[in-house]
Amino acid sequence: MRKMNLIPMLKPDSVAIIGASRDPDKVGHVILQNYINAGYSGRLYAVNKKADGDIMGVKTFVSVADIKDKIDLAVIAVPAQFVPKVLEECGKAGVRTAVVVSGGFAEIGNTQLQDEMVSIAEKYAMPTLGPNCLGVMDPRSRIDTLFLPTYKLSRPRVGGVSFVCQSGAVGSTVLDLISGEGFGLSKFISYGNAAHVDEVDILNYLMDDEETKVVIMYIEGIKRGKEFIEIAKKITKKKPVVVLKAGRTAAGTAAAHSHTAALAGSYEAHEALFRQYGFTIAEDLGDLLNYAKILSSETFPKGNRTMIITNGGGTGVLVADAIGSSGILAMAQLGQKQSIYLRKSMPPLVNIRNPLDLAGDADDKRYETALATITSDDNVDMIIVIALFQTPGADSRVAAKLVNFKDRTDKPMIVLSIGAEYTQMHRIMMESAGLPVYDSPSAAVRSLAELLKYANYRNRA
Amino acid sequence: MRKMNLIPMLKPDSVAIIGASRDPDKVGHVILQNYINAGYSGRLYAVNKKADGDIMGVKTFVSVADIKDKIDLAVIAVPAQFVPKVLEECGKAGVRTAVVVSGGFAEIGNTQLQDEMVSIAEKYAMPTLGPNCLGVMDPRSRIDTLFLPTYKLSRPRVGGVSFVCQSGAVGSTVLDLISGEGFGLSKFISYGNAAHVDEVDILNYLMDDEETKVVIMYIEGIKRGKEFIEIAKKITKKKPVVVLKAGRTAAGTAAAHSHTAALAGSYEAHEALFRQYGFTIAEDLGDLLNYAKILSSETFPKGNRTMIITNGGGTGVLVADAIGSSGILAMAQLGQKQSIYLRKSMPPLVNIRNPLDLAGDADDKRYETALATITSDDNVDMIIVIALFQTPGADSRVAAKLVNFKDRTDKPMIVLSIGAEYTQMHRIMMESAGLPVYDSPSAAVRSLAELLKYANYRNRA
Repeated sequence: MRKMNLIPMLKPDSVAIIGASRDPDKVGHVILQNYINAGYSGRLYAVNKKADGDIMGVKTFVSVADIKDKIDLAVIAVPAQFVPKVLEECGKAGVRTAVVVSGGFAEIGNTQLQDEMVSIAEKYAMPTLGPNCLGVMDPRSRIDTLFLPTYKLSRPRVGGVSFVCQSGAVGSTVLDLISGEGFGLSKFISYGNAAHVDEVDILNYLMDDEETKVVIMYIEGIKRGKEFIEIAKKITKKKPVVVLKAGRTAAGTAAAHSHTAALAGSYEAHEALFRQYGFTIAEDLGDLLNYAKILSSETFPKGNRTMIITNGGGTGVLVADAIGSSGILAMAQLGQKQSIYLRKSMPPLVNIRNPLDLAGDADDKRYETALATITSDDNVDMIIVIALFQTPGADSRVAAKLVNFKDRTDKPMIVLSIGAEYTQMHRIMMESAGLPVYDSPSAAVRSLAELLKYANYRNRA
Repeated sequence: MRKMNLIPMLKPDSVAIIGASRDPDKVGHVILQNYINAGYSGRLYAVNKKADGDIMGVKTFVSVADIKDKIDLAVIAVPAQFVPKVLEECGKAGVRTAVVVSGGFAEIGNTQLQDEMVSIAEKYAMPTLGPNCLGVMDPRSRIDTLFLPTYKLSRPRVGGVSFVCQSGAVGSTVLDLISGEGFGLSKFISYGNAAHVDEVDILNYLMDDEETKVVIMYIEGIKRGKEFIEIAKKITKKKPVVVLKAGRTAAGTAAAHSHTAALAGSYEAHEALFRQYGFTIAEDLGDLLNYAKILSSETFPKGNRTMIITNGGGTGVLVADAIGSSGILAMAQLGQKQSIYLRKSMPPLVNIRNPLDLAGDADDKRYETALATITSDDNVDMIIVIALFQTPGADSRVAAKLVNFKDRTDKPMIVLSIGAEYTQMHRIMMESAGLPVYDSPSAAVRSLAELLKYANYRNRA
């Protein structure tokens, strides 16, 4: 299998922005601006065929050929018809990798132009991402080729999730959600038409990337089926991969073809393949995030017995229902010793059962007593803690206590908190501390179910 | 069928808070505080057996018997064992309705105390809500018996959705979400143990309430099956009812019984009944809100042909997929005249098809051209507009344009916008203006599907 070195693309020591512009409405301006804002510490150059001097303080050249430096990454944001010429110059100048953000290729029928681009990339063995893509982001190396301003699309903090996305639109919204929820990103790779670098190359790179704990991907089509299977066999033995595949239906398949010229193939065939090789299948955008949160924790359950702790009875009922419908999780039965201890420690109105309803006045101390007992119970494999911050007893001390327990147990533990501003504040607080937080009973339970399925696959494999 | 007059409970001219307290940690303090904060303009009294003078400026009495005024609503927040005595005093004093927020009745096995409460309510023909509930909220009459502070649980604006909820926890979180998303509430009725006033009485009242456009409900059990069917037959012919029924599984049923002492019965039987009488069935908390938003618009489709307009290709593909899987919606085919016009008006990179991908640089003008053409196309019954605010062209002008079109068409139209802060700002802006906004492809499509199902039921009925 071909192995492309994508390290210079994600961890470049030097970057040239080709098509950089002084005009704030131009894509090449926003990209350069974002590089500057992100605090990229490598050597940065701008290229503009009409420019001299500098743009926003960055030294600017008429051609990449004029830069007297070895360039690891060229970000190309010029109109489609100029891309082959620019890419040729890059190849000649020894540029190591390229990202073509420009659109106007196969997705609107210009396959010849795209083929031309690919043959140049191949001639110079220069891994080239795109065209028609958002490019790459790596919060660790502060690489950010996205042409979307940060006030519209907030950037996630550093974390363990790498996100591979064929569509720019899907990519930008999911990135924005990751950032909004406060969990962290390893790499974002938006690969658009997949003309040269494709999903197989990217998975091959991420498989060995130590910073990547879990891969999530949105794909419209797979180009090299045989090679995909080869990599699929290997990668899920090392780390989980969550996949959202477009083109589940005739309507979606037709739409995907007109979007990235992808040949979607039969969804059923793809799904069977994904299941066989231990991929986690997302059925909606939100589940890419839901599943990534818990899978990136690298904590795997020993069994399916799930305990619910709650400060709201009805919400506990809904989670119990979701567990009952999951087909894989079971309600844990507390051990005798733990039951007796809890009966002694809890107020009389608390029923000692599963769900354990701590009642609306539960404070951090009552949560602590419950968690200390339940995390030490061998009859419990996984814990769902419902913390409703609308209640009189719940505040940031409860949130802090839950975060604290994450490090005191080897059982997977997630939180369910539903609500607006005050709740949202606590959600972000817990999520930023690495505790997976969900906003619906079904999302919480489905995520634990997928964690268990993946753990079972790893145990078998 | 018995008909309880709940108007004095929701639109009282005079309210007595029994158990009002000067101690900020007491439920009776928070309730009185919330009444004052809400700006209730009726006559307000506090009752505290140890009090004299006033609490927070509200005239305070030792017993409700001492108040020389006709009381429409008594809110009772005293320990469970004192409730019968207090309720008896209310009955004698001619209080018209009561809300018992106190817990400690059937839900912890005290059925005798609860029976005592009911017999007093019946003796005085005094509709009594609860016990073990949050009570009622009506933003129009500024009634708010909730004992949860507004900084933890924000209150929704005035609107057309009435929310009937057995569980306080579920009630408070959904209220908070309604408020956070910017859509409006008619009435909130949390009825807890349903000892006296139950779901049948509440539906009977809401059926004739002109301010209520749609009813959403969370129930754990139905107490009077025959009467429920009687009201179910009638209400859905007048307005939609969305129901989330807990106890779908053995695990959930057991949990529900310990929560509100509800006998859940077979979920399948309930579901069959709901379907037969045109209820809209929610399978998760979020869908209560999702379905309420579009159903409260009172705009019904003439058919199932759905048009997607988008500024992000991948998101359009995901929505097309969801339409393909819906089992009821179909992709619309644009009329010839409209196609020709759009081809002439749109830039070359816009494919004139469904989804209509206006591309990432689409601004308000491009959306306007698309919407003006598509809303006038007889081949289109419903419209899903995807507006991704991360893109260069999308801003508040696009949001304003979409709001504007809501009033220019009689076709159901919803918006899908996914993202963090900048997007959230625009979501709330559109939702507050009455345009239903969704945050996932599947939620958007399922909501339109449920709208169509309800429209079909109404047409048949």
